[in-house]
Amino acid sequence: MKKIIVINGPNMNMLGTREPGIYGKLSLEDIEGLINREAAILGAACTFFQSNSEGGIVTGIQNAAGADGVILNAAAYTHYSIAIRDAISAIAAPVIEVHMSNIYARESFRAKSVLAPVCIGTISGFGADSYVLALHALCRI
Amino acid sequence: MKKIIVINGPNMNMLGTREPGIYGKLSLEDIEGLINREAAILGAACTFFQSNSEGGIVTGIQNAAGADGVILNAAAYTHYSIAIRDAISAIAAPVIEVHMSNIYARESFRAKSVLAPVCIGTISGFGADSYVLALHALCRI
Amino acid sequence: MKKIIVINGPNMNMLGTREPGIYGKLSLEDIEGLINREAAILGAACTFFQSNSEGGIVTGIQNAAGADGVILNAAAYTHYSIAIRDAISAIAAPVIEVHMSNIYARESFRAKSVLAPVCIGTISGFGADSYVLALHALCRI
Amino acid sequence: MKKIIVINGPNMNMLGTREPGIYGKLSLEDIEGLINREAAILGAACTFFQSNSEGGIVTGIQNAAGADGVILNAAAYTHYSIAIRDAISAIAAPVIEVHMSNIYARESFRAKSVLAPVCIGTISGFGADSYVLALHALCRI
Amino acid sequence: MKKIIVINGPNMNMLGTREPGIYGKLSLEDIEGLINREAAILGAACTFFQSNSEGGIVTGIQNAAGADGVILNAAAYTHYSIAIRDAISAIAAPVIEVHMSNIYARESFRAKSVLAPVCIGTISGFGADSYVLALHALCRI
Amino acid sequence: MKKIIVINGPNMNMLGTREPGIYGKLSLEDIEGLINREAAILGAACTFFQSNSEGGIVTGIQNAAGADGVILNAAAYTHYSIAIRDAISAIAAPVIEVHMSNIYARESFRAKSVLAPVCIGTISGFGADSYVLALHALCRI
Amino acid sequence: MKKIIVINGPNMNMLGTREPGIYGKLSLEDIEGLINREAAILGAACTFFQSNSEGGIVTGIQNAAGADGVILNAAAYTHYSIAIRDAISAIAAPVIEVHMSNIYARESFRAKSVLAPVCIGTISGFGADSYVLALHALCRI
Amino acid sequence: MKKIIVINGPNMNMLGTREPGIYGKLSLEDIEGLINREAAILGAACTFFQSNSEGGIVTGIQNAAGADGVILNAAAYTHYSIAIRDAISAIAAPVIEVHMSNIYARESFRAKSVLAPVCIGTISGFGADSYVLALHALCRI
Amino acid sequence: MKKIIVINGPNMNMLGTREPGIYGKLSLEDIEGLINREAAILGAACTFFQSNSEGGIVTGIQNAAGADGVILNAAAYTHYSIAIRDAISAIAAPVIEVHMSNIYARESFRAKSVLAPVCIGTISGFGADSYVLALHALCRI
Amino acid sequence: MKKIIVINGPNMNMLGTREPGIYGKLSLEDIEGLINREAAILGAACTFFQSNSEGGIVTGIQNAAGADGVILNAAAYTHYSIAIRDAISAIAAPVIEVHMSNIYARESFRAKSVLAPVCIGTISGFGADSYVLALHALCRI
Amino acid sequence: MKKIIVINGPNMNMLGTREPGIYGKLSLEDIEGLINREAAILGAACTFFQSNSEGGIVTGIQNAAGADGVILNAAAYTHYSIAIRDAISAIAAPVIEVHMSNIYARESFRAKSVLAPVCIGTISGFGADSYVLALHALCRI
Amino acid sequence: MKKIIVINGPNMNMLGTREPGIYGKLSLEDIEGLINREAAILGAACTFFQSNSEGGIVTGIQNAAGADGVILNAAAYTHYSIAIRDAISAIAAPVIEVHMSNIYARESFRAKSVLAPVCIGTISGFGADSYVLALHALCRI
Repeated sequence: MKKIIVINGPNMNMLGTREPGIYGKLSLEDIEGLINREAAILGAACTFFQSNSEGGIVTGIQNAAGADGVILNAAAYTHYSIAIRDAISAIAAPVIEVHMSNIYARESFRAKSVLAPVCIGTISGFGADSYVLALHALCRI
Repeated sequence: MKKIIVINGPNMNMLGTREPGIYGKLSLEDIEGLINREAAILGAACTFFQSNSEGGIVTGIQNAAGADGVILNAAAYTHYSIAIRDAISAIAAPVIEVHMSNIYARESFRAKSVLAPVCIGTISGFGADSYVLALHALCRI
Repeated sequence: MKKIIVINGPNMNMLGTREPGIYGKLSLEDIEGLINREAAILGAACTFFQSNSEGGIVTGIQNAAGADGVILNAAAYTHYSIAIRDAISAIAAPVIEVHMSNIYARESFRAKSVLAPVCIGTISGFGADSYVLALHALCRI
Repeated sequence: MKKIIVINGPNMNMLGTREPGIYGKLSLEDIEGLINREAAILGAACTFFQSNSEGGIVTGIQNAAGADGVILNAAAYTHYSIAIRDAISAIAAPVIEVHMSNIYARESFRAKSVLAPVCIGTISGFGADSYVLALHALCRI
Repeated sequence: MKKIIVINGPNMNMLGTREPGIYGKLSLEDIEGLINREAAILGAACTFFQSNSEGGIVTGIQNAAGADGVILNAAAYTHYSIAIRDAISAIAAPVIEVHMSNIYARESFRAKSVLAPVCIGTISGFGADSYVLALHALCRI
Repeated sequence: MKKIIVINGPNMNMLGTREPGIYGKLSLEDIEGLINREAAILGAACTFFQSNSEGGIVTGIQNAAGADGVILNAAAYTHYSIAIRDAISAIAAPVIEVHMSNIYARESFRAKSVLAPVCIGTISGFGADSYVLALHALCRI
Repeated sequence: MKKIIVINGPNMNMLGTREPGIYGKLSLEDIEGLINREAAILGAACTFFQSNSEGGIVTGIQNAAGADGVILNAAAYTHYSIAIRDAISAIAAPVIEVHMSNIYARESFRAKSVLAPVCIGTISGFGADSYVLALHALCRI
Repeated sequence: MKKIIVINGPNMNMLGTREPGIYGKLSLEDIEGLINREAAILGAACTFFQSNSEGGIVTGIQNAAGADGVILNAAAYTHYSIAIRDAISAIAAPVIEVHMSNIYARESFRAKSVLAPVCIGTISGFGADSYVLALHALCRI
Repeated sequence: MKKIIVINGPNMNMLGTREPGIYGKLSLEDIEGLINREAAILGAACTFFQSNSEGGIVTGIQNAAGADGVILNAAAYTHYSIAIRDAISAIAAPVIEVHMSNIYARESFRAKSVLAPVCIGTISGFGADSYVLALHALCRI
Repeated sequence: MKKIIVINGPNMNMLGTREPGIYGKLSLEDIEGLINREAAILGAACTFFQSNSEGGIVTGIQNAAGADGVILNAAAYTHYSIAIRDAISAIAAPVIEVHMSNIYARESFRAKSVLAPVCIGTISGFGADSYVLALHALCRI
Repeated sequence: MKKIIVINGPNMNMLGTREPGIYGKLSLEDIEGLINREAAILGAACTFFQSNSEGGIVTGIQNAAGADGVILNAAAYTHYSIAIRDAISAIAAPVIEVHMSNIYARESFRAKSVLAPVCIGTISGFGADSYVLALHALCRI
Repeated sequence: MKKIIVINGPNMNMLGTREPGIYGKLSLEDIEGLINREAAILGAACTFFQSNSEGGIVTGIQNAAGADGVILNAAAYTHYSIAIRDAISAIAAPVIEVHMSNIYARESFRAKSVLAPVCIGTISGFGADSYVLALHALCRI
């Protein structure tokens, strides 16, 4: 069974009430449920971690060093956290960057990811499905 | 049955011999075969189109106006073709942008997509699987 | 009788259905009819050409070398086609750049025309009337 | 009868002697005569205003709030006067930006208009005819 | 009794009819009334000055050299008038920059104030209350 | 009674000893006392929170979702924390950005706030009075 | 006898009290006296004009069209007034740009003159002597 | 005998009449004749291809994959065609970039070649001799 | 005996396994041992602190206010943490910035330190020796 | 008698034959003669030095440390030589920057002087008279 | 017999040992031998000059004023020496810029030549053959 | 015994009198004495070289090719001399870049070193100790 770590960044704990026009009405728990159901089909075991803290996410990624893959939605930190970028480079596990919204169709500063160059790939714009697609991608490696 | 159009841009007809260290050893025909197999499982019918010409891709997208979805790898045109961007905006069908390589991990000019803001989402970095994941995404809408 | 060539660029063949909030509900044929009616009044003969291909427009402009004037809506190519710019410089006939929408009131990349410096003038923002005004301008030279 | 206000900016009172290689040999009075003749044909009544002062032009535009249209050649202020831009936004009358020279074929700083985004359209490069074409445009609305 | 000069820049004389979605429905006279009422409570005497002219505002600030404080809404000139900046530097009286709208939430060119570095402080985004808060600030010095 | 949350960012716990030439000699406790006295007059109840951690401030803002208003001095994070920006957007309570120093009169990087566009307003440059003025602003809404 | 027009821009009427550390303690009248004394020696007749208004300076330059030379200290307008630049280009008389302070040793925005390219020369940094040196330069032509 | 493909881009079919002050009076056929004469001496066989279409040139380069060398004057496409760049990278044959004019002595946008980094070398500024020198270069490898 | 605080930033706890080609094979404990041995020779007492959290490092620096010197390797935060910069400015103890790798020979974003302007000096590129050299520097003050 | 050092930079030894349309027909010796005649009138003694070498000019300025003033035309080095800038800062003697041509009316790279901020003033555009005016300026100090 | 001067810039005297992966294993003497052999065939006489000094190269170019042509590899100075640029402009002899490596395929700062706009042409990327091709070019003029 | 070459750039021969507020009161000879004393302790032999000439420093570095290490303070040339950069790359000996002042705390142009990427490390801000620390670093390799 593949061991997958799903890491969510700042304000993702507010999903459902946070700007629902952009992020939809599902709570983070709802999305984790969706992921777990798909994981069961694909034969993967998911662990979930959320933090508002940049350092917390750095540590979360370090803790995922032994996993088979990481699904990372670093939210706002995507655009400037070199610390998280370095954490990704510091572990051997493949990391996929996901975003629920299409980050290229919003404010210009959201179009830049400092994490993307050190992830294996990026999936952006499919709402909760972005996580599910990333799970498929990790299971196909 | 969902009708999906898969459009590939310039030099994608060279896959297999073109910079295999970046794009892998599968030919475009091999990849189309992979997509068709997955489509059969998902209940979708795929049509394929490749052109080295920017205007050809514009016309190809216009011709896809009635489809249920478009999977577009515009290759080099991704980075500067406002004509293709306008074609995407001109049709109602949802368009997903895909890339085989991680375009954020290469030359800096490849990190910018002028198409992404008008697509519904982007999938980049998974080789031939990028197309398959896009197919899943369209079938989940 | 003045011989005028009217050249339209990519996606202009979609007028009427293409983003009608921006470009209006008239088809390209409707607009050509309007131009022809005004040309009849002004004593000009108009020939029409549309292409989605940058190279097609280059050739179209080369073919207009012997005309009394060219009305050019290069659409998306306005913003980056140095090839079309060079074609304009390569012929003696005066070329007027027209746009239906006000290109300065949209995305920032549309505010720049690489063609304007080699055209005799620019008319932007008057919908189908932009063509008619350009026709007047050519007939007043 | 349509009420049109024609507003000219700084140094336009020097037309005829000011850089005739760029602006031609007609004085501002000559051009106003040309506009009046065309207005008579089109059934419009034109009022003329010229000022070297940015604030004077702001006030001139405010005074045109009740007109059917404004033809504005803000000359040098085109390139930096946000005050004039705000005056245009503050009135309901449609404003057309005109330039006698092709502003895109001169020094690079002249290629940028801070007014264009809030005007309905722009006409540039046709000498005195730029005003006449703008008059036509307003009468066709 | 503190002597305060309130200076308003271009198009502020249009308040009430000018873009009410941004600036509200109060006229400049209404706002001056509000300020006077608060001044009476705080023991300050306010004098009001409005000009559409950059030079007029420069002179207005020079005339305020002997006041106890200046409340300045330079409107559009905020973003480029080094002349007004120099006038502020040329007098000893403290100057507070105010804006009714949140200038950081609008077009990007409005986010830059060339005046702010030489004012003692900035208050932006509170509608007519921006003036009242500035009055409080001056009275607390 | 209005419920107001006052949030201070990194190094604000050092006030009094931290660069007193810029920030003055009052400690954070002194300032909180000043705010409380003014709140008592205005009929508001203030709660105070300080954190050196970006994630801590994100959480602090999330916890203020039910308040009547937030006064936020994000200090250094003002200039780059998109995470804090997203937290402000995620709650319904109005947030006012305050700064003790005039951030436009210091190093150029301090002139840019990534938070300002999502706050209702900004008050900068009045020392401890910046907080008091923000309190007034919230009570006047 | 050479006819020289000396034009001073905004806030130059404040000389003597305006930032004396930068501009010295001489009033504008003192400086005009110095210039007149040197002009008497050199056989030139000087006329003086000062305005806080950009439009006023434009008109002042237009009025100097018949002079033998213009000495222009446009002060703050130096850095952005294309209107004044166009006025200089519109007259035949040679214009020398002068500055009392060394504009290259102050804020970076002062290092750029939009007027310099159309003046015959620039003299900057010599206090009141900058005017005297310009007078010498005009008399040596 | 070395097999060399000579590829010319947009508007090169207009040589002789196109801006002769820049490109000279020789037609493309004249230049091909010159190249053939030199090739005969050097023991090379040249094939010629010209297209106004970006996609056409991409295909032309793909078709040259088996040649001993390619001489490419991509004309306007030099400055922005990543599609042509990718085609050069996709083939094994060495490609030399040539220009008849000195592209560094013209408009600034012509000084940048997106193709140069993937060609083996560049020859610019020698008119028709640029092709002949490239032929020598290929024959010396 | 001099009291020195050695502070390490995010991912430095991964030394030895983290990108050993760049950072070497020594663990953070190994390096702390090296520093302690050199400190014993120089008569200094070192305390060590590591945190993945930006706020944690801010607090760590505040806690070092009474030390004789701080050796700071802020790792990724070097490039954007104004919060850490402000913490350095807030204490009197001299801070030396160190880096194990040559930060100028890597990705361009690593060449910029926002901390360097407020440190007394920088030592970069000597692996574990960077810390030892900084210790020497502090002991020579 | 004032001791003045006149230093000329690279290619100034070619005056008279070097681009006479820009620099005139006088040789460097002719200009030195003009300066000497004016110096005799003003009671100054001039020494002349020319070098094509940046280091030579640095040394020349160091050697002028004891003079009453330096007139420096650093020619091309004006635009990039921080070494010469540092030499100017390293000596106490006042340095005036002169240029024969109007450097603001030529290529854009010539409009920037890295020396101007550390000179006392700049004189540009008066041909050989630029030196004479600088001599006057030094004698008036 | 044509008189050709071959000038080489800084570090070219290290050829053979300097970064042989980029510049090859031939010494400068080897290359001069190659050039001489080709010159003998073409009926040209070559003189060679190398200097590490910018001023030395300026003087070397001045000394070549009477030659029939100059082949210049300014090496590092290519990218910033306006002094060398001015020397090229100061002489009548045609100058060809050559580079052994493809300067467009290396660090981005090497892609810019400040010399190219004033040379007649550029040849880059052919190793020692770059000189030989330049010799051919000069002999064909 | 390690053979170390210490190279100092332009104006370093003025140390002691040159801007002592920045560079201190020690002469270059004083500093060389300090280095020699430390070298004696560490078992190294130092040779010293200073030049105001860029080419002189290039040659100096070439002459150090056989040394065990180079300590280089290129002073002003640090910020733009690609020639010196290439010289460093051309030799095998390790080069350490040193600066007496903290170059990141001064004018912005001093924060950029074009040499740093090809040196093994950088030491900046410790006055004369910067050289001593570099000596330690070379002896620890």
